[in-house]
Amino acid sequence: MEYAKSPRNTVKRIPKRGFYDQETVFSILDDGFLCHLGFVIGDQPYVIPTSYGRMGTRLYVHGASTSRMLLATAEGIPVCLTVTHLDALVLARSAFHHSMNYRSAVIFGVARLVDDETEKMEALYCISEHILKGRWDEVRGPNTIEMKATSVLRIDIEEASAKIRTGPPGDDAEDYQLPVWAGILPLKKGYDPAIPDPRLEEGIEKSPSISA
Amino acid sequence: MEYAKSPRNTVKRIPKRGFYDQETVFSILDDGFLCHLGFVIGDQPYVIPTSYGRMGTRLYVHGASTSRMLLATAEGIPVCLTVTHLDALVLARSAFHHSMNYRSAVIFGVARLVDDETEKMEALYCISEHILKGRWDEVRGPNTIEMKATSVLRIDIEEASAKIRTGPPGDDAEDYQLPVWAGILPLKKGYDPAIPDPRLEEGIEKSPSISA
Repeated sequence: MEYAKSPRNTVKRIPKRGFYDQETVFSILDDGFLCHLGFVIGDQPYVIPTSYGRMGTRLYVHGASTSRMLLATAEGIPVCLTVTHLDALVLARSAFHHSMNYRSAVIFGVARLVDDETEKMEALYCISEHILKGRWDEVRGPNTIEMKATSVLRIDIEEASAKIRTGPPGDDAEDYQLPVWAGILPLKKGYDPAIPDPRLEEGIEKSPSISA
Repeated sequence: MEYAKSPRNTVKRIPKRGFYDQETVFSILDDGFLCHLGFVIGDQPYVIPTSYGRMGTRLYVHGASTSRMLLATAEGIPVCLTVTHLDALVLARSAFHHSMNYRSAVIFGVARLVDDETEKMEALYCISEHILKGRWDEVRGPNTIEMKATSVLRIDIEEASAKIRTGPPGDDAEDYQLPVWAGILPLKKGYDPAIPDPRLEEGIEKSPSISA
């Protein structure tokens, strides 16, 4: 499936880096769990970092019932949810051709508060699985008070696009002879070893979700 | 210096994680180079990943002269620039108390196109130094055509706040006896070894900015 190109989602700067197929967009969403969610109150844009989960063509974000973001969006307001994976610095022979290798997905839709308790629980499970697969089933699940303190927003994806850069620098032809080191500097990915809670009781081993 | 608390920048969810002093905000800005810039066209929010630099109380972002973001903001429009460093997953004994350790800075201001050529060059230098200190002086500087193809926006910081979480999970008292591994899972930081451009000529050593 391809998202139709509109004035809203069309990649204008370096169009060859733009992708509109659902598979590419979903692969970028599924490779992360931190998004930056944009919304508007009055004329003022807000951009808030938050975790998310994807279930089919829906995205879910959660937060405390008191948070500004969720209060603002409870009635259904337009949002832009952006996920960016920075893969490498691209070091060219000229300042101008310096760049980054990245994969970003920009999602447009309307965010609405989830009222249904079953959907809300499924959404929280989905967000948790996005962050650390298998963890949900290893821990104490949410009780009634905790569920009340948590709000969940659903965003049905209306339009989306991805932007991707990969590969070595692209220098001007005459710059390749400059005596300047060029290449890429990849960013480290993944996790360092887990650090136990100082209050962890002795003899409790790391659960499978963490070891994986 | 402290930023005054307003409805716009006050951290409402878990207020104890909110910081309003310039030193904390600047330290978060200076520890990164990728931001998510939010702006509004019509009623529609847009959130675009881009690099930035800080010079005193000003932030600079750049892009091609044709990009949507820069065209929209040339006349001076309100923006929200957010920088997030994700430090660790916080794995609690209950689903509800799962969290992340992070440092985020949310900046409010008006973005304006930089017309002055000297300021524009200084801004590009500033952004470059933010990403990889020392690199600018090792490579070919921008020529007239490249400067024309590049636009720079200046954002004077009007209001800002930071939000920080550190430390181990905070579980409910009765959950500490659960046989569940708890602790933090730190995200890797820094760079993997540099990968040379396939077209790099033999005998060119890595420059000091990269080795550092």
